[in-house]
Amino acid sequence: MPSLFTRIINRELPAKIFYETDDVIVIADINPKEKIHLLLIPKKESTNFYQTDSETLIMLNKTVKTVAEKLGVEDSFRIVINNGFGQEVDHLHYHFLSPKNSDKLCWLE
Amino acid sequence: MPSLFTRIINRELPAKIFYETDDVIVIADINPKEKIHLLLIPKKESTNFYQTDSETLIMLNKTVKTVAEKLGVEDSFRIVINNGFGQEVDHLHYHFLSPKNSDKLCWLE
Repeated sequence: MPSLFTRIINRELPAKIFYETDDVIVIADINPKEKIHLLLIPKKESTNFYQTDSETLIMLNKTVKTVAEKLGVEDSFRIVINNGFGQEVDHLHYHFLSPKNSDKLCWLE
Repeated sequence: MPSLFTRIINRELPAKIFYETDDVIVIADINPKEKIHLLLIPKKESTNFYQTDSETLIMLNKTVKTVAEKLGVEDSFRIVINNGFGQEVDHLHYHFLSPKNSDKLCWLE
C-alpha cells in the first residue's frame, strides 16, 4: 500500500507543491505551526530517519539549504524530524518551519 | 571567542557527556524537554546548519543513528535543529529527544 505521501507524489491526492526534483517533493503542511511550514519528502519511500540510507539523508540536507535559499530565510528556520515519536505518516519527512513571511512562498501546483 | 560548546569540548566548562569521538560530542541538555534530551555538537565550530559543510552534516546523520542505537530508542526519537530561529548557542547542535526511559543513559563524565 503506497503511503499518503507517495499518493501525493503520484498526483493521486492533492497538495500545495513548493518544489520538486526527481528525488524529493516539498509541500505545504496542511496544519501549519508557523508562517512557513513545509514538508520535505524523499520520493524513495522509507519509514523513518533511522531506516533511511545515507544517500537519501544527504539529499535531504541539500534540499533544506535549497529551500531556505528559495525562501530567503537562510538565517531563520527550524528542522524537525519525528522518528516514531510524534510521527503521523510512516514515510520519512522533514518539517521545515520559519516564523518569517516570505513573498517567495508560492506553489507550483 | 570560543563558543560555549567549544569550551565544554575543551573541558573548560562542565557537562554530562554521553558520547564522544574526534568529530562530535554528545551531552545532556541542561533544560531537558523529554526523558531523554541530548545535544549532538560537532567539534568543528560552525554557526548553524545552513553554514555547515556537507561532511559535518553527514557525520551528524551517522551520530544520530549511533546515539539511537546506544540508547535502544531507534523507533522513538525526535531531532530538532534550530537554525537562527530558537537557537540559543551559535554553534551548530542537533537536539535529540525521546519520551522513553533508557537504562543505557549514563555518562562518561
